[in-house]
Amino acid sequence: MQRRKFIRTAGVGAAAVATTAAVAAPAIAQSAPEINWRLTSSFPKSLDTLYGGVEHFAKIVAEATDNKFQIRTFAAGEIVPGLQVLDAVQNGTVEMGQTAFYYYYGKDPTFALATVVPFGLNTRQMNSWVIQGGGEQLINDFLKTYNVIGMVGGNTTAQMGGWFRKEIKTVDDLKGLKMRIAGLAGDVMTKLGVVPQQIAGGDIYPALEKGTVDAAEWVGPYDDQKLGFVKVAPYYYYPGWWEGNAALHLIVGIDKFNALPKTYQQILRMAAAETNAFITARYDADNPKALRALIATGAKLMPFSQQVLEASFVAANDVYAGLVEKNANFKKIYESQMAFRKDGVLWGRVAENTFDNFMARQSAANKL
Amino acid sequence: MQRRKFIRTAGVGAAAVATTAAVAAPAIAQSAPEINWRLTSSFPKSLDTLYGGVEHFAKIVAEATDNKFQIRTFAAGEIVPGLQVLDAVQNGTVEMGQTAFYYYYGKDPTFALATVVPFGLNTRQMNSWVIQGGGEQLINDFLKTYNVIGMVGGNTTAQMGGWFRKEIKTVDDLKGLKMRIAGLAGDVMTKLGVVPQQIAGGDIYPALEKGTVDAAEWVGPYDDQKLGFVKVAPYYYYPGWWEGNAALHLIVGIDKFNALPKTYQQILRMAAAETNAFITARYDADNPKALRALIATGAKLMPFSQQVLEASFVAANDVYAGLVEKNANFKKIYESQMAFRKDGVLWGRVAENTFDNFMARQSAANKL
Repeated sequence: MQRRKFIRTAGVGAAAVATTAAVAAPAIAQSAPEINWRLTSSFPKSLDTLYGGVEHFAKIVAEATDNKFQIRTFAAGEIVPGLQVLDAVQNGTVEMGQTAFYYYYGKDPTFALATVVPFGLNTRQMNSWVIQGGGEQLINDFLKTYNVIGMVGGNTTAQMGGWFRKEIKTVDDLKGLKMRIAGLAGDVMTKLGVVPQQIAGGDIYPALEKGTVDAAEWVGPYDDQKLGFVKVAPYYYYPGWWEGNAALHLIVGIDKFNALPKTYQQILRMAAAETNAFITARYDADNPKALRALIATGAKLMPFSQQVLEASFVAANDVYAGLVEKNANFKKIYESQMAFRKDGVLWGRVAENTFDNFMARQSAANKL
Repeated sequence: MQRRKFIRTAGVGAAAVATTAAVAAPAIAQSAPEINWRLTSSFPKSLDTLYGGVEHFAKIVAEATDNKFQIRTFAAGEIVPGLQVLDAVQNGTVEMGQTAFYYYYGKDPTFALATVVPFGLNTRQMNSWVIQGGGEQLINDFLKTYNVIGMVGGNTTAQMGGWFRKEIKTVDDLKGLKMRIAGLAGDVMTKLGVVPQQIAGGDIYPALEKGTVDAAEWVGPYDDQKLGFVKVAPYYYYPGWWEGNAALHLIVGIDKFNALPKTYQQILRMAAAETNAFITARYDADNPKALRALIATGAKLMPFSQQVLEASFVAANDVYAGLVEKNANFKKIYESQMAFRKDGVLWGRVAENTFDNFMARQSAANKL
């Protein structure tokens, strides 16, 4: 709490200020202290769906606390590099971060399960696993070692399979392919003969243009459009089977969180939930328009063949079998998530998918 | 604000109480008054997904306000009949309500668009239309006449098509069928020869048992299981094409809402968003288990035939054409929602549906 500012705003009437504030401060400080935090994001401002999410988050937290709880947001690289958000919060450099946990796959592959794994959950299933399936508890038990608390605060929804310079008809076409893809998805791709490449967002376009890489995955139409890949790698594949959803987390240092009044803790949780819906809604609203625009400028929309998907599914299960054997953290969360997937997909086959597929047929027949 | 309680809790030290509270009260009363509201639900306690949602909502609002904003919840019939929630909030009998707006279809068919219409949006599309597609504004502009503000605060997700005593193979099998179904869906069914029946939840079972009705729709596996329909009408059809989602609203009297401090207004909005996710997650987590149990006790899971779906789609469009011509409110919101549907389904056909359908095939092949 910034004591000086509190006294200035809480005092009523010039003469009474000193006494009143001095006496009343302890009780009020407990319930509504003034707090100023910094939040660093893994994403640049140009990814306005994601970075726009934390601006929104900070705004609603301020509104819910009469501007007493202020969170200043920073884009990737402004104060902390994009892939060091976890470390910065863990070390107390900043109080909060916005990140995708699978960026820390190198520390422990278990992190991937907090975002998404190949052929994992879709967006609804992920939210449900987190909220009702024990996911939140499992993730936060794992995060204790890293001194942070995680709250799901966004989702990219199902992503695209990325941009390819040539068609991929069979699994053989993947052999030797240099593709910008990272983490667990890269491990699965390796089993299929792909040579994964690690390239930062801004360097992908020239690499595709020169042919240093043959393919690159990014997010989905709205985010992809900005990077202009369509001009140099027009085959736009779907679905991104390695990202049936991608949950983003808002993270807080455990000590910082525990020191907050209970009211502010609850407000952070609610604001994260609201921001999760906000970001998801933005992707759902903005992707269709971007997809139309991409097709108009030459994107050749291509489904991965059933053969490629089946082989990828087998390769993913191979990778999981190895991880489950070696890593107890991974095993525990993986088994919970996969049991949830089994039930969720079963139920999805009934009302949800048949409704969506009927509507898709009407769309294909131009009846909508 | 309950002034006496404020003084008791805000005072620090026996001697200082009177002076401190008297001087500090006005500023603090503005930002965090004690408020006690009543919320009446359209749903009975036995629908614990829905009524449980308002209990959750009241709990998190209290937690976010240090128990200063208390909302007492009442189930349908406790203080207000379930289908008169809108009227009770409109008239100021209670400050808040939980309801599905399509119950007020008789007042104006436009209400249906705030919940769901046949072959309308799915759950993700509905949330996105509300949050990013102008839906919230359109709904609330319409609600002004009724003196309430609506916040989406839950969703049943895609519903089932209900329980039938005999198989429905063709559109001809629908002719003369007495079915418990209401509102706009009832109007569409009428075009197909069905004779819609209005029956309260508790009376459906005996009506199906005696054959007074031939079919009845309710919600989905988790809610349906409790009413035991499987014993008397075992054919369990999907999808409930009249409810690809069903958005539930938390409603507040406009004057009551406007009189709240901005902080409490924001807390209500965030709590509604969190509760929307909470209820959706519960359905997604609980429906699969209930579906398994229903199948084990004799439910015969049946998809509506393509012919039945196509004929229903045509009938729905006929009904909409009539409403658009007669009702300017309906026309305005319908056109916004249908434009959003067109884009949403188009994008869904790409990454989302192909991912879901691949996973569904793995489920069918017992590979999950």
